[in-house]
Amino acid sequence: MDLQESRQRIAQALNDLTAFNATPGQGVTRFPFTEEARQASRYLKKLMEDLGLQVRLDNSGAVIGRLEGQVPETIMTGSHLDSVQNGGAYDGIAGVVTSIEALRLLLQREKRPHYSYEVIATNDEEGSRFSSGLFTGKVLLGQLSVEDIKGYKDAAGISVYEAMQAYGLQPEEIDQHVREDIRAFLEVHIEQGPILEMEQKSIGIVDAIVGMKRALITINGRADHSGTMPMQLRKDAMEVAAKVIAKIGDRARQYPPAVATVGNLSVEPNIVNIVPSRVKFCIDFRTTDAEIIKKMYQELLLDLDSCCQKYAMSYMAEETLWVEPVQLRPQLQEYIEESCRERGFSHMHLISGAGHDAQVFGAQLPAAMIFVPSIGGRSHCPEERTDPLALAMAAQVACDTLVKLDTRQKL
Amino acid sequence: MDLQESRQRIAQALNDLTAFNATPGQGVTRFPFTEEARQASRYLKKLMEDLGLQVRLDNSGAVIGRLEGQVPETIMTGSHLDSVQNGGAYDGIAGVVTSIEALRLLLQREKRPHYSYEVIATNDEEGSRFSSGLFTGKVLLGQLSVEDIKGYKDAAGISVYEAMQAYGLQPEEIDQHVREDIRAFLEVHIEQGPILEMEQKSIGIVDAIVGMKRALITINGRADHSGTMPMQLRKDAMEVAAKVIAKIGDRARQYPPAVATVGNLSVEPNIVNIVPSRVKFCIDFRTTDAEIIKKMYQELLLDLDSCCQKYAMSYMAEETLWVEPVQLRPQLQEYIEESCRERGFSHMHLISGAGHDAQVFGAQLPAAMIFVPSIGGRSHCPEERTDPLALAMAAQVACDTLVKLDTRQKL
Repeated sequence: MDLQESRQRIAQALNDLTAFNATPGQGVTRFPFTEEARQASRYLKKLMEDLGLQVRLDNSGAVIGRLEGQVPETIMTGSHLDSVQNGGAYDGIAGVVTSIEALRLLLQREKRPHYSYEVIATNDEEGSRFSSGLFTGKVLLGQLSVEDIKGYKDAAGISVYEAMQAYGLQPEEIDQHVREDIRAFLEVHIEQGPILEMEQKSIGIVDAIVGMKRALITINGRADHSGTMPMQLRKDAMEVAAKVIAKIGDRARQYPPAVATVGNLSVEPNIVNIVPSRVKFCIDFRTTDAEIIKKMYQELLLDLDSCCQKYAMSYMAEETLWVEPVQLRPQLQEYIEESCRERGFSHMHLISGAGHDAQVFGAQLPAAMIFVPSIGGRSHCPEERTDPLALAMAAQVACDTLVKLDTRQKL
Repeated sequence: MDLQESRQRIAQALNDLTAFNATPGQGVTRFPFTEEARQASRYLKKLMEDLGLQVRLDNSGAVIGRLEGQVPETIMTGSHLDSVQNGGAYDGIAGVVTSIEALRLLLQREKRPHYSYEVIATNDEEGSRFSSGLFTGKVLLGQLSVEDIKGYKDAAGISVYEAMQAYGLQPEEIDQHVREDIRAFLEVHIEQGPILEMEQKSIGIVDAIVGMKRALITINGRADHSGTMPMQLRKDAMEVAAKVIAKIGDRARQYPPAVATVGNLSVEPNIVNIVPSRVKFCIDFRTTDAEIIKKMYQELLLDLDSCCQKYAMSYMAEETLWVEPVQLRPQLQEYIEESCRERGFSHMHLISGAGHDAQVFGAQLPAAMIFVPSIGGRSHCPEERTDPLALAMAAQVACDTLVKLDTRQKL
């Protein structure tokens, strides 16, 4: 049966790809422009060549396999080949392998489709090495300049520009070769959350990718002896931080599906018997409605205002990231849903709380995402797992979606 | 004039002693059993010998200068010679130098007093090196065993036992030579807080030294992706920590002069886009009433119970320190107050929010403390300052207090 064969091929490829890893035994670490990335790229190139695709490494470090159709307009499908530090063996790469399988299934049905098709393994989607990310998408759509890539640096001070050179690419050409032939983008990805598993659905149809605001908040107090400074004279940065952070979660719960997280916090001087002089924390707000994100952030700033004023303290709020929410294409969602119904696969609509390549494409072009369940909802950790059978089902749905798009052409 | 001469001598000695310092230019660091401690001890020994005192280095590393009276019963006065890491030039050592000056003034008035007098520069009061502290006081009162001092270790793994050996002391004799001849203990110390300066008083008479409870609280949540895990399914250790810490300050303000501080906090994994799986923080409660300390701690535990229960999380609370509050001797406070009035020095009663040698002695013997103002209330930092004139005034008050104790004998 087709599904079992697909499952087998996907499982084998994912197993092979796990070897291209800077941290064997401690999850998968595959950073952009490294030897591990090069090895994975070679492996993926071979898989694509075996299908008869015309394969190239593009100037962003992506691997692209092309099937020439009757018209040059291109439908692109894929995901990313890089990983986070000590991440899992599925995030990104499972979508690449599933998309290759979808192309294989497509080729069994249409030797010469109307549109041209490309399967892509994008590079540096995660941004783990250079604190940037979504790299290939931005390059393909002409959103990065030579100056930009000189600015993004890794922990060793190496810029994207330098890393590209060392990898054999042409950083000076970063803003050339902008793709204007992409008609639509379809991404298959693991959910990285618990919803599909909880709802016992095989396929997730993504309606939208959340927008995101991140800010670094610095609260300035005054270091004092924890025994000798009376409470009414203190400027305790930890107390203000706690009072403000305490309200963040309850506020987000008022606006589902909004989420708000303080994942990173540091205290100075961080000594048991000294009143903290400074607390810095990062806040991460996400939801599908940009206005709600702005509202949550404004309310946080009001809390900071009133709390700092009460103790005659000051704060700084520095926005470090703003990403617009992206609505994915309703017509493509319908094709996916119809394909699920035809196959008898259980499915549901949901949103993506994480960023993906599809958000770069989706901001400019018709785009869609298919989610597959993450076991236990775990991701970005060595315990990340997805059933290869679920990926094989996603490959069938992706193939069916591409065929519908090819024959009906309606977007 | 006497006061100016005392000021001059005290300022000179403090200036000279600042040289015995492991971190010149970055405040004073004088840890126990180091070369800096040995040099400071030699300098203090010389000062005491110049007064005609009989001087010895005792087995705790303290310098003791003795004036033999008509009876062997001993009134001890002094403070500590060690400092915190990158501390100031006054904490501890200013009290030693002022006590030496007080003995000088006493000798001008009484060549052969009724009681015997000792001026002491104690060792390892701060506990900065071995996370212990109040060392000399505990040794003199027989509170430490050979086993104890083998257990206290510094960051390099060296125990107090080993450090004593290297310093030329006899750690095996740590629980011998217990002093049973001490009739009273008088400590002069900088306030390390803002009260005297704010109230424009020259001398502080300490009523009590606060008790202290410290605990390490560990909140266990679950690491999840900050975008993909819905709010209602999270176990966010930072959110619970913030909600619990937010109430600590307001609770302490209900029980003045109680103070409560979270000076130290760490987050795991401390990554902006991961829900914190664990937060650890240290709480430090202090006040003069042991019952209030216990009440504040119980209320914190109740908050932890209810907040953790709400999100199906767990916590651990580990008490790391308990120190009983110590009431200082009312009769000695009266002698100090009377002395201030006679000299026309402005004065007030206050409590000590920091721990001191006097708390070890005060738990077993009549003890008293004289505070002098800290400029800007600053302490345990390079900016720590006290006017040497204020120390000279304290030397006169200390001398007068010793004379009253010697002549009236009432305790």
